[in-house]
Amino acid sequence: MRVPKHIGIIPDGNRRWAVSNSMTKDRGYENGLLPGLSAFRYCKELGVKELSIYGFTTDNTKRPKTQRLAFTKACVEMVNIIKKEDAEILVVGNTTSDMFPCELMELTERKKFNNGGMKVNFLINYSWEWDLKTQNKDISYYNTADISRIDLIIRWGGMRRLSGFLPVQSVYADFYVVDDMWPEYRNEHIDMALDWYSQQDVTLGG
Amino acid sequence: MRVPKHIGIIPDGNRRWAVSNSMTKDRGYENGLLPGLSAFRYCKELGVKELSIYGFTTDNTKRPKTQRLAFTKACVEMVNIIKKEDAEILVVGNTTSDMFPCELMELTERKKFNNGGMKVNFLINYSWEWDLKTQNKDISYYNTADISRIDLIIRWGGMRRLSGFLPVQSVYADFYVVDDMWPEYRNEHIDMALDWYSQQDVTLGG
Repeated sequence: MRVPKHIGIIPDGNRRWAVSNSMTKDRGYENGLLPGLSAFRYCKELGVKELSIYGFTTDNTKRPKTQRLAFTKACVEMVNIIKKEDAEILVVGNTTSDMFPCELMELTERKKFNNGGMKVNFLINYSWEWDLKTQNKDISYYNTADISRIDLIIRWGGMRRLSGFLPVQSVYADFYVVDDMWPEYRNEHIDMALDWYSQQDVTLGG
Repeated sequence: MRVPKHIGIIPDGNRRWAVSNSMTKDRGYENGLLPGLSAFRYCKELGVKELSIYGFTTDNTKRPKTQRLAFTKACVEMVNIIKKEDAEILVVGNTTSDMFPCELMELTERKKFNNGGMKVNFLINYSWEWDLKTQNKDISYYNTADISRIDLIIRWGGMRRLSGFLPVQSVYADFYVVDDMWPEYRNEHIDMALDWYSQQDVTLGG
């Protein structure tokens, strides 16, 4: 099986899952933490070298306050959970806004935890406009230049769109959609995505 | 039915179609011209306001010369065909390279043909790196700032990837894949894409 070097994860559907399980929307996010740890460990076991995980965007912060607090808390906890693993963590997002959790400021430069080994990028208070804002005319000008090209994006929750996820790194990515919601994560979702990915022809426009 | 204002078209699969019909690969492109006219007319009839069509990229020009000449010729003919319709045509791409067909130079500023009405953007010798190369620090800095946000991208030929197609305009686009090859185009493909699109929830991250 051809294993992608870099997988992008869009963990969507937390709120819809909460509502369909008779909870308030904000309760969805805490139920996405165990899936995050499982996905990290399974991707590591499979030999994936880099994971980019869509946390929240500056647009998301316009949602009701209870939801905003809930997803911010879940993102910080998710990072703390991965800090206990062998990982090299980077947090990217707009740190100049109040919406950026100050606990994560120290991770805006990549840090190695335990034995390191897998790069994990968390998008926190991220926005594609912020990302593409430029400092110089070079092609490596954007704010996420430390994140490599993505081979495969897996989105949970059934939507077939990128929603502003790393536009530069995603230009050649294959895009796989899981209809189940993120809190319903199972390793078999990754298996299905990788089976499909193995059958794709990588041409990069050539 | 909810009709998207702006549709992106990735007309892939010309070469695979040619090979499976016992032709040489370069013969695929000329068989994509009638589909292009049909798609334009059908989208217009449905009330779509803007179409962006992926012609060829600077990466594509590295293919064997017979193929390169064939897809360049087909793209120029496609533009000429649409010039006979009611359309407002813009050609975007890197005009500083020899690979840009000089016949299309006059269309690098949008021109109205006949009664105008629908904007049609052709990506010719386009590349996302070229697109994002910047002149100033504003968000409207990129080279395709005259092209609006895309609501729905339809890709023929079964691949589920953007292949560098207008990364900025595609950030929130819904992505529909047709397994048939582009020369096998039928209006029903658009119908299926629009039926699906109508069921999607537009949130723009909110």
